[in-house]
Amino acid sequence: MHPLIQQGSAWSLTETGTDKEQIKQNETLFALANGHIGTRGSLEEASRTPDYSYSEGTLMNGFYDTEPITYGEWAYGYATHHQTVIPLPNGKRIEISLDGETVDLETGETTNHKRTLDLKKGMLTRSFTWENAVQVEIERFVSYDYPELLAQRIQITPLVSNKELTVKLVLDDLAEMGREAKGETDVDPRIKQLTARRFDSQKLESSMGKMLHITTHNTGLHALVGAMTCAGDEWTLSIEKDASETYALQTKADQTVELERFIGYSPIFHKKEEASQEVETMEILFDVIKGLGYDQVRAKHVYTMEKFWALSDVEIDGDEALQVGLRFNIFHLNQAAGRDGKTNMSAKGLSGEGYEGHYFWDTEMYMLPFFLYTQPETARKLLQYRHSILPQARKRAREMAIKKGALFAWRTINGEEASAYYPAGTAQVHINADIAHAVYAYIQATDDEVFAYNEGLEILVETARFWVNYGHFDERREGAFVLNTVTGPDEYTAIVNNNFYTNLMAKHNLDYALETVMKAIAKECGLDVLAEIGFEKEELEQWAEASEKMFLPYDKKTKLTMQDDSFFHKKVWDFDNTPAKKYPLLLHYHPLTIYRHQVCKQADTVLAQFLFSWEFSTDQKARDYAYYEAVTTHDSSLSRSVFGMMASDIGDLDKAYSYFMDTALMDITDMQANTKDGVHAANMGGTWMSMIYGFAGLRVYDDTVHFTPQLPKQWQRIAFTIQFKDREIGVTITPKDTRYILREGKPLTIYHNGAPRHIVNHKK
Amino acid sequence: MHPLIQQGSAWSLTETGTDKEQIKQNETLFALANGHIGTRGSLEEASRTPDYSYSEGTLMNGFYDTEPITYGEWAYGYATHHQTVIPLPNGKRIEISLDGETVDLETGETTNHKRTLDLKKGMLTRSFTWENAVQVEIERFVSYDYPELLAQRIQITPLVSNKELTVKLVLDDLAEMGREAKGETDVDPRIKQLTARRFDSQKLESSMGKMLHITTHNTGLHALVGAMTCAGDEWTLSIEKDASETYALQTKADQTVELERFIGYSPIFHKKEEASQEVETMEILFDVIKGLGYDQVRAKHVYTMEKFWALSDVEIDGDEALQVGLRFNIFHLNQAAGRDGKTNMSAKGLSGEGYEGHYFWDTEMYMLPFFLYTQPETARKLLQYRHSILPQARKRAREMAIKKGALFAWRTINGEEASAYYPAGTAQVHINADIAHAVYAYIQATDDEVFAYNEGLEILVETARFWVNYGHFDERREGAFVLNTVTGPDEYTAIVNNNFYTNLMAKHNLDYALETVMKAIAKECGLDVLAEIGFEKEELEQWAEASEKMFLPYDKKTKLTMQDDSFFHKKVWDFDNTPAKKYPLLLHYHPLTIYRHQVCKQADTVLAQFLFSWEFSTDQKARDYAYYEAVTTHDSSLSRSVFGMMASDIGDLDKAYSYFMDTALMDITDMQANTKDGVHAANMGGTWMSMIYGFAGLRVYDDTVHFTPQLPKQWQRIAFTIQFKDREIGVTITPKDTRYILREGKPLTIYHNGAPRHIVNHKK
Repeated sequence: MHPLIQQGSAWSLTETGTDKEQIKQNETLFALANGHIGTRGSLEEASRTPDYSYSEGTLMNGFYDTEPITYGEWAYGYATHHQTVIPLPNGKRIEISLDGETVDLETGETTNHKRTLDLKKGMLTRSFTWENAVQVEIERFVSYDYPELLAQRIQITPLVSNKELTVKLVLDDLAEMGREAKGETDVDPRIKQLTARRFDSQKLESSMGKMLHITTHNTGLHALVGAMTCAGDEWTLSIEKDASETYALQTKADQTVELERFIGYSPIFHKKEEASQEVETMEILFDVIKGLGYDQVRAKHVYTMEKFWALSDVEIDGDEALQVGLRFNIFHLNQAAGRDGKTNMSAKGLSGEGYEGHYFWDTEMYMLPFFLYTQPETARKLLQYRHSILPQARKRAREMAIKKGALFAWRTINGEEASAYYPAGTAQVHINADIAHAVYAYIQATDDEVFAYNEGLEILVETARFWVNYGHFDERREGAFVLNTVTGPDEYTAIVNNNFYTNLMAKHNLDYALETVMKAIAKECGLDVLAEIGFEKEELEQWAEASEKMFLPYDKKTKLTMQDDSFFHKKVWDFDNTPAKKYPLLLHYHPLTIYRHQVCKQADTVLAQFLFSWEFSTDQKARDYAYYEAVTTHDSSLSRSVFGMMASDIGDLDKAYSYFMDTALMDITDMQANTKDGVHAANMGGTWMSMIYGFAGLRVYDDTVHFTPQLPKQWQRIAFTIQFKDREIGVTITPKDTRYILREGKPLTIYHNGAPRHIVNHKK
Repeated sequence: MHPLIQQGSAWSLTETGTDKEQIKQNETLFALANGHIGTRGSLEEASRTPDYSYSEGTLMNGFYDTEPITYGEWAYGYATHHQTVIPLPNGKRIEISLDGETVDLETGETTNHKRTLDLKKGMLTRSFTWENAVQVEIERFVSYDYPELLAQRIQITPLVSNKELTVKLVLDDLAEMGREAKGETDVDPRIKQLTARRFDSQKLESSMGKMLHITTHNTGLHALVGAMTCAGDEWTLSIEKDASETYALQTKADQTVELERFIGYSPIFHKKEEASQEVETMEILFDVIKGLGYDQVRAKHVYTMEKFWALSDVEIDGDEALQVGLRFNIFHLNQAAGRDGKTNMSAKGLSGEGYEGHYFWDTEMYMLPFFLYTQPETARKLLQYRHSILPQARKRAREMAIKKGALFAWRTINGEEASAYYPAGTAQVHINADIAHAVYAYIQATDDEVFAYNEGLEILVETARFWVNYGHFDERREGAFVLNTVTGPDEYTAIVNNNFYTNLMAKHNLDYALETVMKAIAKECGLDVLAEIGFEKEELEQWAEASEKMFLPYDKKTKLTMQDDSFFHKKVWDFDNTPAKKYPLLLHYHPLTIYRHQVCKQADTVLAQFLFSWEFSTDQKARDYAYYEAVTTHDSSLSRSVFGMMASDIGDLDKAYSYFMDTALMDITDMQANTKDGVHAANMGGTWMSMIYGFAGLRVYDDTVHFTPQLPKQWQRIAFTIQFKDREIGVTITPKDTRYILREGKPLTIYHNGAPRHIVNHKK
């Protein structure tokens, strides 16, 4: 059992003691977020205890600044600006002193130090005794009910009387500089930060304790940050010059005293006036919260979390550690999703600054499925974000000399390309098809015609257009439609021709567009959308022909699917002579060394076959799986879950189980050795997918759900719920059978191991 | 006739008038250099007349500073530092005043402004009349006899009497900032300058007028710069605070007065003490020069230039403009070559700061042939430079995970890779074979066994080793030896497999090494070299096998040589719909757009076939030529000369003539629209090659020279001299016949149109 996981606690992670390294990693694991704000699980006194802290930031989804990208050698069409989320004023710092001596881990003896992340309640609690003089208990949560709100309750039990106890609460008006402030530099390309992270901060008059109007330097984004403390009459308040509040009282032994602290982070505004108008809204909100009091706000939060789990939990009987890991991943996944249609899910969620808070294909291919089948309304919001950045994607396509259609940025916050290395950035044009795939999956899963014939239609048409303009019919391949000079998901192979994944995804993208446009025309829905984007009927033929003739590289001799035209012509990486410390390869070998060999960072062909598993024979999939697994390093956290699911698909349950263990515990065990920079949100989605698509065998095609459940021998039962076309379906798999219960919605015919099964809601 | 070329002047370029744009471009055309220093042809008052100046730098070959390269996204093995030549204190500035009014083009009326670059004498003269008050004549040359020396003679004829004439001479102790100082920024990736160009400058006590010890900030290079003025007694000297010298006198109408100015640039030193010791050496040198006086130093220079031309001139009867263009190119080529074994030839020579003063493959493949056959001792020095950077090349190979052998930097000054864009930098591993090719050609042309079994042997072995470690035997190609993930000469196609040029060159590289090592063993020469680099006999077999099985991509169906494995699978660029202003493509299209299409920046396959033309049938060459010419933009200045020579090779003399016109006049006509940043030195070499390899049809194989002369119908005669194995051979081609005269050296059997011809030196 991992030290964070305690026997009998299937709903929590518990840290005991004060191991410096573990506390730093736990800043990520214990991060709390609600899709709008996220705050790392740093110690309240982190700024005073650098040895016990890494980056204590509080982030707001989509609140970023830019900086020009400097290239050693520039070329036309390169991304122009870094976009980087910036830590906000940090309201959770607390400084407790007893007779002038400050409570922190570095100066006094701390005993019984314990922190618990309660996944069920969405609550982080900490308790410890300091110098045998005070017992401290701090509880923290980020509210889903009030997306602006981070709440803290501080309970202190003095063990001695007649001392002066003070609690200082600070809302910094400067951004913290995290690791950089400590002079730590890092060349890991997966972390990139602005060289100067700055915003202007203006103190506002407000009925709240302190309120700041912050404005980013280059992007001109505005937000308000405010803090309010609720204290009983026993406390005496003094306000210092820097506007920090200090509460003081004389201790009485064994008598617990309490402070409640609320920090508010407004939505993001593009105009200063909008932010100014928000002051009143924030004040009203905080009045409401003051009126309710900490206990009621907390109770509401716990209730919301319970509702969430009722629809989102995936139960495993048979392995408590995996159960915790799975819940932990679902918990963080839920915390990561922007729900305002203007923001998305960054690769690290809101748990850390890795990857600069950028949105990647990770959202659509790894994280969205969870929301599709448990919170379709959130899935819609995430896709609406993509729709909102279509203008930037169209502009980008023009920059790439694509005359019609759109090309989504490989990594972005504001919709513009922010990838400074195009071979593993812009060249990954598959992101277009990934987004189209997600749009189609959403339509399939929800029958949401409003979305389908508005945002959905526009995305599908604009992405389909891209493919016919990017590729061409290759006469030397009997007129097959080819897509040259692309990079597939596997970033250890770049700038290749006819990446199988890309071509297969593009083919489906074309089909999705074709189908949706034809339906739109038939139903006379979305015709205004088509007119606005200048759709012409001849395009249908272009798409149909490109799809039909799409080249899918296959080696007849070995009967293997080829990752791309040239993959098999490369030398297989010398794995035997590559020591463990040389992984991940990207940190130890030049791209040309890596690209020259058969070596994969992650699932590529295998991912394509997972997504359309019904299009391939099991023999084919098994053959390809064996081949590609042998050359895959899993240096990307996006890899193992796919190999796990495909292991289920080809019937290798032991392997599927082993991969599942890795994915479920990836961050808890720090498998990728960089959890400190943030959770691996895509892998978290992949963990959920491993349960639902992997062990339960969910596939969605022919307008309904298909299951082929396989329960690992180590488990006695798995159970979960999915939403599908306004229905709620409970699934319980045991070694004996699988039960499908329609809890909400109209009857439906689903498929179990290929056989139809009609399910009806008996409640009604 | 181009305005710079005057009828009847086959040895000069003349600028008349004061056209701002032309004067800026002419800074490059009128640059004077000697391989050690180079000074741009700027006006003496350039610093006061920014509208008439672009970059007035004086450069020293190999005097550079570094700056860390910033990458938007870093990866392992990336080049770490920019290396950039830095302009030195500029001693050629002159400020003439008459009664306090300063003579410059912007403040007064200038008439009869004329500048002449005398190619024969290696001399730049300028004359003009200002405000009808003074006539000025300034002459400038950079000495080959004293590589440290830049000399100026200022002659002023006042047209009015009793005015105060002053001449102020400045040796700036700050580097000029060129275009950047003027706030001009440029995103052209072909120009890259340090963001801050700095060196420290220390004034030294010296018997010379002024002497500075300059030290670069990061590279710690040292050099001395000194200036000395010789003036008659009629002048009164005053020295100002900034150590500038002002000479003054009262004018007498029509009486010419004169000043002589000498500026000295020491060699480069790596240690401060060495530079300090050089002070005395410089003083002695300048004492000698003072003793000789300007006229004698000038006479010596003119004599040296005459000797140079006696061996290097290529005469054309029939087109004066082309004759001037050709001589101009030879003139600049000669000016560019470092001759100390520690420096090389930068892509712009010493005529401008384009490409940062870096050395590329341009040296070996385009510029070295001229020296090989006219100044073999200079060719040797250039190759010794490559030998001197073998340690850096070995280190680079290790960084690229190549266990044995060396990989030369794509662009460099100090031997370390300075290319910040590896797809068109480090990926051009063909540079290894290019250098080996030049080494072998040098050995062939000179029979220099000392070099062959020392530096030559080491380079050949270390480059051959690279190939067997970089490539592998591809089972899917019947065991053919393949070289994947490379970029060939054509930079519009990057990161491909089996670039024909690279593979063919590598094959020959392996053969060269094999042959030379076997000879060394047989002659028992260079065995110490082999021992020192750990040579093992099994390597010979490896090289032989890789060479024998080298994969050379060929399309049987169309009978075309394939530029690489996938070139023909790409879509042909839409040339018809690409307006002229969109060239060069690299400034208007993203690399992925360019790489995705069949479009070449320059000769690639055609270059390979030129280099080994005897290995291919004329049919094959003609077929490939037609195909590749149609998809080549010549956006690289390295392209046209090759197409020209191959046009000769396949018998299309009209085309050869047309390309020759372009290459001969490329910089004079500013064909590439960036001559202001420096001459296109490789094209200048290519122009010479076009005469010798093109029209005269020189090929060197089977240990002798082969000619297949073809005289364009526009010409009556061409004549030139080559050095070959200690012989001097004069070649004269007329419509009637070709005469080969052995002027120096032992008899030799050469081949004329495939037939042997024995030539004997009748002088002796």
